[in-house]
Amino acid sequence: MTAQAHGDFRNRRVLVTGGLGFIGSHLTRRLLAAGAIVTVVDSLIPEYGGNLYNLLEVANRIRINISDVRDPHSFRNMLDGQEYLFNLAGQTSHQDSMDNPFVDLDINAAAQLSILEACRRYNPSVRIVFASTRQIYGRPDYLPVDESHPLRPVDVNGINKLAGENYHLLYQQVYGIATSALRLTNTYGPAMRIKDARQTFLGIWVRRLLEGQAFEVWGGEQLRDFNYVDDVVDALLLSVSHPKAIGRVFNLGSPEVVSLRQLAELLLHANGDGGYHIREFPAERKKIDIGDYYSDYSAFAALGWQPQIPLAEGLSRTLTYFARHLEHYR
Amino acid sequence: MTAQAHGDFRNRRVLVTGGLGFIGSHLTRRLLAAGAIVTVVDSLIPEYGGNLYNLLEVANRIRINISDVRDPHSFRNMLDGQEYLFNLAGQTSHQDSMDNPFVDLDINAAAQLSILEACRRYNPSVRIVFASTRQIYGRPDYLPVDESHPLRPVDVNGINKLAGENYHLLYQQVYGIATSALRLTNTYGPAMRIKDARQTFLGIWVRRLLEGQAFEVWGGEQLRDFNYVDDVVDALLLSVSHPKAIGRVFNLGSPEVVSLRQLAELLLHANGDGGYHIREFPAERKKIDIGDYYSDYSAFAALGWQPQIPLAEGLSRTLTYFARHLEHYR
Repeated sequence: MTAQAHGDFRNRRVLVTGGLGFIGSHLTRRLLAAGAIVTVVDSLIPEYGGNLYNLLEVANRIRINISDVRDPHSFRNMLDGQEYLFNLAGQTSHQDSMDNPFVDLDINAAAQLSILEACRRYNPSVRIVFASTRQIYGRPDYLPVDESHPLRPVDVNGINKLAGENYHLLYQQVYGIATSALRLTNTYGPAMRIKDARQTFLGIWVRRLLEGQAFEVWGGEQLRDFNYVDDVVDALLLSVSHPKAIGRVFNLGSPEVVSLRQLAELLLHANGDGGYHIREFPAERKKIDIGDYYSDYSAFAALGWQPQIPLAEGLSRTLTYFARHLEHYR
Repeated sequence: MTAQAHGDFRNRRVLVTGGLGFIGSHLTRRLLAAGAIVTVVDSLIPEYGGNLYNLLEVANRIRINISDVRDPHSFRNMLDGQEYLFNLAGQTSHQDSMDNPFVDLDINAAAQLSILEACRRYNPSVRIVFASTRQIYGRPDYLPVDESHPLRPVDVNGINKLAGENYHLLYQQVYGIATSALRLTNTYGPAMRIKDARQTFLGIWVRRLLEGQAFEVWGGEQLRDFNYVDDVVDALLLSVSHPKAIGRVFNLGSPEVVSLRQLAELLLHANGDGGYHIREFPAERKKIDIGDYYSDYSAFAALGWQPQIPLAEGLSRTLTYFARHLEHYR
């Protein structure tokens, strides 16, 4: 699928929050290729996903603005004249949300309200897509999880992301701002955070593998679905340009469902070398673990989205990228 | 039902946030009658429900602390040694939450997180009940609404109250703090706010009636359920003392379901005099109105709660009270 299939972004003004991050930087390059005029906003807080290296080769073709979405003043200026807002900035670590719940609240709820208030007052015609998360479902009652599954978040992050998603839907219903939300599942690919497990456990697996170390698999039998980052970019472009996506929330997901143990094996196979060991889930993490999860993404598929990159292929691309650029990410 | 039926509060140390408010003041008097040692916390912000007059006759038997739940420092001191926490403080106005969404977020979400963090650190054995709201359901898919109904709040207040409720349940799951939450429907009775419709539209109806003026009924056909405040106090006492209530959320409700027009007629009948006129729902309010609502409260009934005061009787008591004390409330 190409960007052209998802609306024409040529000479359109686009704002990407979290634009120096993992997904944001892939999206930005795709938007540039489609001819968009792109501004990226990123706080570059070391614990989050932003990394100037991610957009180094296109830095002279975009406007990069280092600021925090918690700052409503700078946001107003950046919003001026934008036609699309890809709202990707967030705090993603489940454990950090338990250790520092107010930081998570500020970024994932308060700042989202602030962004939407700015849109309502200064740019109500901007088209918005919000990156939500499957974390808001909590432990599934049934599988696959569809969008009408009960929402019972099991950590502070899930609670605050749910508030952030709800604000986006509310501002559409009450003020007519054209918003959509995507509930992302595990996204992986080149440029994901590998310093630690704050963005995804898969990051730390990849890093250890490339450093010649065995990685740890906690539990191992949990089922998960994974999306390669290019497929998520497709989804973001489609959701921001499809009229039937307005005011709605959609699951992303994958036809490939694997256990963490199977994922570990796939990763070793892609790397041709390495090892892992299974360990018990740490007690404090078990409390906020969701068990098995995979999604029913048929509602979004009905709008024309299908993940294109098989897991084995995506893992291979990811390892190839990090083998070449490891020093910029660890 | 008596307080004795809901656990023994004699010489037990109890903290009531929002204790000078409508429900909080009724609860406080009941706790005093049961022999509890009560501290009430209230911000006395004029737009909210707190009113020193509500507890004037028992002021020398309780500790009244004027402070705001948004202030974590004073809260730590008040929490010290408490065995029960009735967490009733909140911003209740739906329209105010749209006009000042950050104030609503601070009180209904951020302050709740702050209260729970204080409990976790300084008094993890405190038993907590949180006053949640039916507002978090949004427009019902079916009636009566049970606790597994989807949660799709239609205003900022509903989104933030949902976050506040979720924090309470999460802190039970993860940290073992004994919390319960009650989703209140329309509560009415002596000492409710009648200055305006910020707490309930019924308040402004009562005031106009007692001032010899016709009151306005918006729409008129919406179905609602109502709880007299004494029944809600019963529910709070039961939920804070029943072991099976821990970690759970329950609807309150009533076997009497009436339209707003029927409610207006009942009120006139109780007063013996007066009038009302039906008007169209104002456009800006229509957007955040939930249509018909009444609850299935069978889960909480199974723990032993049943509302005792019929609507006609409750309205009569309410009018009698305000006829005598009107100058302290308008």
